[in-house]
Amino acid sequence: MTDVTPDRVTAAYAALLTGDRAKITEYWSEDVRFHAPGQHRFAGWHEGLDSFLEYMTGVYVASGGSWRTDVLHSIIDGEHSVELVKVHAVRAGAKPDSTSPFDVLDITGAQVMRWEDGKVVEGTAGYFGDGATNANQWWSPVGPDGVRRDT
Amino acid sequence: MTDVTPDRVTAAYAALLTGDRAKITEYWSEDVRFHAPGQHRFAGWHEGLDSFLEYMTGVYVASGGSWRTDVLHSIIDGEHSVELVKVHAVRAGAKPDSTSPFDVLDITGAQVMRWEDGKVVEGTAGYFGDGATNANQWWSPVGPDGVRRDT
Amino acid sequence: MTDVTPDRVTAAYAALLTGDRAKITEYWSEDVRFHAPGQHRFAGWHEGLDSFLEYMTGVYVASGGSWRTDVLHSIIDGEHSVELVKVHAVRAGAKPDSTSPFDVLDITGAQVMRWEDGKVVEGTAGYFGDGATNANQWWSPVGPDGVRRDT
Amino acid sequence: MTDVTPDRVTAAYAALLTGDRAKITEYWSEDVRFHAPGQHRFAGWHEGLDSFLEYMTGVYVASGGSWRTDVLHSIIDGEHSVELVKVHAVRAGAKPDSTSPFDVLDITGAQVMRWEDGKVVEGTAGYFGDGATNANQWWSPVGPDGVRRDT
Repeated sequence: MTDVTPDRVTAAYAALLTGDRAKITEYWSEDVRFHAPGQHRFAGWHEGLDSFLEYMTGVYVASGGSWRTDVLHSIIDGEHSVELVKVHAVRAGAKPDSTSPFDVLDITGAQVMRWEDGKVVEGTAGYFGDGATNANQWWSPVGPDGVRRDT
Repeated sequence: MTDVTPDRVTAAYAALLTGDRAKITEYWSEDVRFHAPGQHRFAGWHEGLDSFLEYMTGVYVASGGSWRTDVLHSIIDGEHSVELVKVHAVRAGAKPDSTSPFDVLDITGAQVMRWEDGKVVEGTAGYFGDGATNANQWWSPVGPDGVRRDT
Repeated sequence: MTDVTPDRVTAAYAALLTGDRAKITEYWSEDVRFHAPGQHRFAGWHEGLDSFLEYMTGVYVASGGSWRTDVLHSIIDGEHSVELVKVHAVRAGAKPDSTSPFDVLDITGAQVMRWEDGKVVEGTAGYFGDGATNANQWWSPVGPDGVRRDT
Repeated sequence: MTDVTPDRVTAAYAALLTGDRAKITEYWSEDVRFHAPGQHRFAGWHEGLDSFLEYMTGVYVASGGSWRTDVLHSIIDGEHSVELVKVHAVRAGAKPDSTSPFDVLDITGAQVMRWEDGKVVEGTAGYFGDGATNANQWWSPVGPDGVRRDT
């Protein structure tokens, strides 16, 4: 049995960014279920690693690679971990000085994971404050002036 | 010059439902711009008839053909018309007795059109009450239980 | 009978700003019903002039007098008028350079009025684009950093 | 030093319901800060126990005493606890068979607490799925038909 530790949590998040499936499956089960909050195009239950990675690819494309999840603190107890995270991302193609919530995602929240045999099998997230609105706007196909985006 | 009349407004809405482009372009300019309100996947400015009809096709598919726009009243003055509309639609695949706002769209609002030479060249809409939220939820890929939809 | 005209519409909006009830009741019925869109503290049906004016007072206080409704265009037909409006307001106490939607309301929409004997007896509004979200955030008791406001 | 334990977490939640300040302050610091998510009238940072209890009173009044927070699981690590909670509440005055999100709050989420000397000093919450929208609607002064509530 593999214990959940802060290092293992950090490594799991880092693996996602590599895009290397062999690396990713060291930490994420092929059968992982993940629930993205909100109403946006990746919201809801992603069933299985393929669906989850499709969401991660979407994150990369929409943000032009700028998406950053900082784990501020890990709270670990038995098979559960909770990461207090800060997420910052700017929409690909946004004006550099934009402060619009349609361009800039700047939220904090809690990601709750359940682990089995050292791998994440289930996850969900909740955003603090009014972060849910920021996420819905950021993910929408609409830019600050109501123009539809290419990505 | 073709005057805007209640009959012409009614005919313009009816033409959309035929899917017959020759019929549609009697009432809608090839260069029509239409702004769908909200954050959902068809929100924002649709530039040109092709983009607008793509939205109309999306309406048809997502609702399984159940989408119904009733024009309650037309207010016409010069080149502008405003339709007070009631929209009702049920998501394809919804349980027949569902009352969830993710399944059932039931809103009223105002559609504002500008006409030139008897054809709509620009339109936008605003929903009354909390209809914007209902529309965002209905259009989201998430069903009442957080399960992602096929359509 | 008093016809609805663009001048009368303009005068009705201007009367609201005077705070002078005798002036206001030249254009607004004592029995006016007005539906403010959204989820915020003044959302929903205001029944009667007292409730409507309470909302107008709330507008004044929350905006520190900065609320401005510009009527871009009036569309008038029989007993109905529709005003295409642009609303701009900054929350009292906001930092001067704030661009946060919690501080700055910047929306367009349609206000639909029904008139009898030259007075508004019923009104409702719908916001274009994602204005409903801006209005809900602006009216919330939360500032840009999640701090609760005094007003 | 008092360790945070599942029993202590359960007791802290139970104390809130007693309305007995002596009991409450066994578990909640006089200086507690709590951040309620969303845009609604109790959203944002509540600074100090008085503000937090005002929120709790609001919960009681708006729900006519029906508000129920079930702690599904506690995750505890050092000075932090995270409660996975299910909240169910019906608005006072709602029709008994209402399924409207304006009447029925039915959400899950994570409440994150920081403890010092056995007392909660800081807390925040994030809702899973589209719970943020349900909470904003439930707390709004608007009922299912757009009628403003008395409470």
